[in-house]
Amino acid sequence: MAPDLPTAHRVYFSDLAALPPGSDLLIDGDEANHAARVKRLRPGEPITLLDGRGTVAEADLLRAEAGKRAVLELRIRTVHRVGPVRPAVEVWCPPPKGERLETLIEQLSQVGVASWRPLRTARAERDTFRAEKLERIAIESAKQCARAWIIAIGPWTDLAEALPDPRVVLADAGGSPATPAAADTVLLLGPEGGWTPDELEQARGAGRSTLRFGPHTMRIETAAVAGAACLLSHAHPGDTR
Amino acid sequence: MAPDLPTAHRVYFSDLAALPPGSDLLIDGDEANHAARVKRLRPGEPITLLDGRGTVAEADLLRAEAGKRAVLELRIRTVHRVGPVRPAVEVWCPPPKGERLETLIEQLSQVGVASWRPLRTARAERDTFRAEKLERIAIESAKQCARAWIIAIGPWTDLAEALPDPRVVLADAGGSPATPAAADTVLLLGPEGGWTPDELEQARGAGRSTLRFGPHTMRIETAAVAGAACLLSHAHPGDTR
Repeated sequence: MAPDLPTAHRVYFSDLAALPPGSDLLIDGDEANHAARVKRLRPGEPITLLDGRGTVAEADLLRAEAGKRAVLELRIRTVHRVGPVRPAVEVWCPPPKGERLETLIEQLSQVGVASWRPLRTARAERDTFRAEKLERIAIESAKQCARAWIIAIGPWTDLAEALPDPRVVLADAGGSPATPAAADTVLLLGPEGGWTPDELEQARGAGRSTLRFGPHTMRIETAAVAGAACLLSHAHPGDTR
Repeated sequence: MAPDLPTAHRVYFSDLAALPPGSDLLIDGDEANHAARVKRLRPGEPITLLDGRGTVAEADLLRAEAGKRAVLELRIRTVHRVGPVRPAVEVWCPPPKGERLETLIEQLSQVGVASWRPLRTARAERDTFRAEKLERIAIESAKQCARAWIIAIGPWTDLAEALPDPRVVLADAGGSPATPAAADTVLLLGPEGGWTPDELEQARGAGRSTLRFGPHTMRIETAAVAGAACLLSHAHPGDTR
């Protein structure tokens, strides 16, 4: 609902930082074909380029060809930097089964989560997933919801590694009602079977607090997006510089 | 994450209110077959019965048969009433396309929304859906996330009908940051193209306020669950009576 970038067609291009205004740029492959064939973009239309690491360029489309040799020729008009959302909220949780993992990444991206990491827990069910697929989803979501910074997909972690981090809070039905995050926060969610008493004991021993995010049991992808949304409800998109 | 009912297998049965403790009950059809064939429930196991309107019964399974003549025979142990979540949060928004509408209802159910209504707006894209399918999803979700009250699927409405209601707030990027609801609230969300200037003007004219729920553009089902979660983060499941 809150576009933080203009609503020109958005194209991902990973090497934006070196391009001065006035320079021309050729983009080929899937991004070019999608823009030319599906979006039917024509010369003269404005394009927003995102590198997913805070560089945003406004460009004009000079030429668009679809098909096997799909190409976009663009002229850069302006280049600027956009800061990341503050405070930064990360979500670390067990990956849910099947396509629910993809839904999780799309929704966390939309609510403004900085990064997600898969978390090993005593009761979790899934221990592998294809990170490349999630990275493609993260890029598509950044274009769709106008994020200047792509949600990062981090490596596996576990409670022993996470709990010393003072940013960490745990989602738990017995916790305090959540309020918007005032500082960088890492939200850990347990699997749908819940944390074991031993895991909660470890968290308490490390001085970490627990938060609750609503009245009912939730599936993990809903709990993650609900929790992140509560923490990020007062966050603003990063400043343009 | 917060079971408000015991974790016995849950069965939906619409006519619970008249059953005294000690009475026997036969349940047939899909609910019986699912319990007997998929969940493999056996005599002696505890069953929680929900009527979706606040009556919850604890029962013991006496007999379970699967197949065409599937049946569960149960003996009621206790019957109690559970109040609805307070404050009551409703979500009225245009139905998103395809299966995203089903995702929307599942997720709103999990975060504790009392009811959903489809909203006609100037830019909305979809004007029909199968209410019976959503009602089945609402029942399955209530069993899964332990809601004593099933999320209600209400009739179509529009801004002219909605705006006089003093419970109404609008989700909009230009609004104030959301805080947990202190009173019953009806959250209206616009379509993905956003409210038109005229719609926002009507809302202001009716004295309704606007709230924002995060830094980025969201798809409608994500905006709805994020917004509802922010409003419901301090809500408790209803009291048992």
